[in-house]
Amino acid sequence: MVGITRRNMNVSMTSLPKALRNGWPFKRMMIQRPRGTRDFGPAEMAKRRRVEVAMRESCARFGFGEVLTPTFEHAELFTLRSGQGIIDEMYAFKDKGDREMALRPEITASVIRFYVNELSTLPKPLKLYYVGNCFRYENPQSGRFREFFQLGAELIGAKNPETDAEVIALAINCMRAAGLENFIVRIGHIGILKSLVNAEIKDAKAAAEILRMIDKEDFDAMGDMFDAKALPRKLFDKIAALAEIKGEVDLLNNLDPSEATEYLREIFSVLKLHGIEDCQLDIGIVRGLDYYTGMVFEIDAPRLGAEKQVLGGGSYTLSELFGGEPVFSTGFAIGIDRVLLALEKEKPAVEPPILDAYVIPAKEDMRKYAFGIAARLRSQGIRADVDLMRRTMSKNLKYASATGARYAVIVGEAEMAKRSVTLRDMKSGEQRLILADELGVAIKKAEASKLVGH
Amino acid sequence: MVGITRRNMNVSMTSLPKALRNGWPFKRMMIQRPRGTRDFGPAEMAKRRRVEVAMRESCARFGFGEVLTPTFEHAELFTLRSGQGIIDEMYAFKDKGDREMALRPEITASVIRFYVNELSTLPKPLKLYYVGNCFRYENPQSGRFREFFQLGAELIGAKNPETDAEVIALAINCMRAAGLENFIVRIGHIGILKSLVNAEIKDAKAAAEILRMIDKEDFDAMGDMFDAKALPRKLFDKIAALAEIKGEVDLLNNLDPSEATEYLREIFSVLKLHGIEDCQLDIGIVRGLDYYTGMVFEIDAPRLGAEKQVLGGGSYTLSELFGGEPVFSTGFAIGIDRVLLALEKEKPAVEPPILDAYVIPAKEDMRKYAFGIAARLRSQGIRADVDLMRRTMSKNLKYASATGARYAVIVGEAEMAKRSVTLRDMKSGEQRLILADELGVAIKKAEASKLVGH
Repeated sequence: MVGITRRNMNVSMTSLPKALRNGWPFKRMMIQRPRGTRDFGPAEMAKRRRVEVAMRESCARFGFGEVLTPTFEHAELFTLRSGQGIIDEMYAFKDKGDREMALRPEITASVIRFYVNELSTLPKPLKLYYVGNCFRYENPQSGRFREFFQLGAELIGAKNPETDAEVIALAINCMRAAGLENFIVRIGHIGILKSLVNAEIKDAKAAAEILRMIDKEDFDAMGDMFDAKALPRKLFDKIAALAEIKGEVDLLNNLDPSEATEYLREIFSVLKLHGIEDCQLDIGIVRGLDYYTGMVFEIDAPRLGAEKQVLGGGSYTLSELFGGEPVFSTGFAIGIDRVLLALEKEKPAVEPPILDAYVIPAKEDMRKYAFGIAARLRSQGIRADVDLMRRTMSKNLKYASATGARYAVIVGEAEMAKRSVTLRDMKSGEQRLILADELGVAIKKAEASKLVGH
Repeated sequence: MVGITRRNMNVSMTSLPKALRNGWPFKRMMIQRPRGTRDFGPAEMAKRRRVEVAMRESCARFGFGEVLTPTFEHAELFTLRSGQGIIDEMYAFKDKGDREMALRPEITASVIRFYVNELSTLPKPLKLYYVGNCFRYENPQSGRFREFFQLGAELIGAKNPETDAEVIALAINCMRAAGLENFIVRIGHIGILKSLVNAEIKDAKAAAEILRMIDKEDFDAMGDMFDAKALPRKLFDKIAALAEIKGEVDLLNNLDPSEATEYLREIFSVLKLHGIEDCQLDIGIVRGLDYYTGMVFEIDAPRLGAEKQVLGGGSYTLSELFGGEPVFSTGFAIGIDRVLLALEKEKPAVEPPILDAYVIPAKEDMRKYAFGIAARLRSQGIRADVDLMRRTMSKNLKYASATGARYAVIVGEAEMAKRSVTLRDMKSGEQRLILADELGVAIKKAEASKLVGH
């Protein structure tokens, strides 16, 4: 059998060093993980889980219930939502029944499919959230991975300023719960630019193209197009001016009043009732034109630079695409990987210790007590480990230190005669004798007082 | 574009009812989830998360750190571990770079790959756990799904009775933490039958076949083979007798003493130090012959009937297969889906309420207070929702009841004049006036006293 790395590296057998060739197949080359994917170790996972649990808790407090859908779906689910173009960016494959499947590039389509299939009779609004991995076939680059993680929420079955504000408020609560301090919430309405362009540009194809250019903020190309098609320069200026409106909600006063501007004004005022006052108006958001129907919003973490967007959302109708009755929905998706990057930029996380106590038998015949002590600590909710390698005392202390245990618990003969153990603070090196019965409480108390001291 | 369901059902256009044909494509048929996969709604997810969090906590208490590896890997990773045969059971596909990939059928191989690639210099033993989804292409049947969920642990870098007992103790703690009451732990040693068969049957191919038959408990076929090859009947009887040894650890006394029997005896005595006394001896476990090297263990939930195994594990060496230095490891994988099924059979779970409080404005102009009250409850950790649909009072109470909220919080004019709201217990219908400032504490207190009452 041929090792994987070799083939991936496009190294032929003969180009390998002779020693390695000779060693083959006895010394196999390492198998690597797939390109663009990641392995996460315990320290990184502890951070990720903390952020995930905090955001999950926010969703629960807002009355959202969690759902879980399959990791792969019929490919059509995603092309129906996003167009055939997405095929090139998806991990699509045929299953053994020759059906076109795809690893999900996003989860909203799956949630709405689930809603259409099974949940459509539940009382409205239906509030659902999800946490999961998504897949995108693209060249890996900074902050973009082939497998990435999203938390998202969908409020299904209603659309009004209250529901939209509710979803925005949840998004902001998720950011705060994750511990993010520097982020900017921008709220717009796809109807303002869309209705202007569609009203003034009769050629539907040209109108769509202009909206795409606005989406990309490519005003140079738009200017060229206006010149080439001899479209009115005044309209160009109006579009450009609108797309650049970013800032306080009062900027709405400068716009021609419309249903959309009044709707946005109401969203901002409901947000105020939620205690949220620092959102920005951004008329230039026109992402996902074929998809979003009204309010759209984004959250940026400015410290991330070019890839600063950590959340995107808005209101949409999707259910009828999948065979359901039309319903309005509002939702968002958070890029968990980016949130973690942003948190890291704000303040590098202190590595949380994985272990509270490491139990060391001082002598061979103390071993039997050590297991019992570890088992008891564990039953008290303390993260405890015990020497499994029959090491010497000094090697055990080295291991305790290397694995970052807070305390070593030394089980010696003289101590056990007094039903006691030695508790050693691995940072300060302080030691004290303590009754075995009181060990768990003492460790918890010491940890609690340290937390206060922080 | 053609809807998916229609194609899957192999229904041609003309065989559809005329009304439906005429409606096409205006009324699209529903897109279904892929066969053999599942959608989980909020009530089911709450149960799953509770079990997952409890088992995760057990792992942390035992000093295991979480890792996360990619959902798909180079297919060779899995064929190296499990043989080419696994290809037929895997979701294998070529990526756009023409590399053979596979959705992971299990996670141990990925953890060991990660270890070999990046973690091999960490202090030993290295204690890692994972939670994740796995994929298996097989015909869906009761309790078996194409996407399923595992929690597993690997202790890497050592093998002795203490490390094996540690892993078994963790497995048992996970079961207990999940809430499972009826389960049987069976512990064996692959060396006992393997060394007997290999010593007595000189033909290596025949020996391997016999071990496979033992694995499947197919003694009829084994008897036929012994007859056909004229192998000694006495050996057959000895094998059959050994494979049937199941029960108290003292049954070890009936066996010829060997390294394996003494090793097993030590595992049982270390487990006793952990406070674990009710494990069974089972010499007949010979699963994964090419893979496990010594101790093997399984946990059954007898109430599940034929598909009763909820956990499998043992000690193995895998790292050198993936290009690393050889190290001993011991690990297990828990079938989370089966654990949930078993819990359901023990005592059907009471559906946990998703919502603590639903805030209802009594009149239109009370709406502004309602949002503030909901926001405040949420900031106090209470799962609160608020009328987003401008419903009437009676419709709101119906919605509160339908979504299973514990309390309704009614915000009326007279009440607000006294800075108060009405708190209504949705089960009993009892109502009382309460200061808005004291609402959060009152709800928490009522919940706490109810929990005590349970």
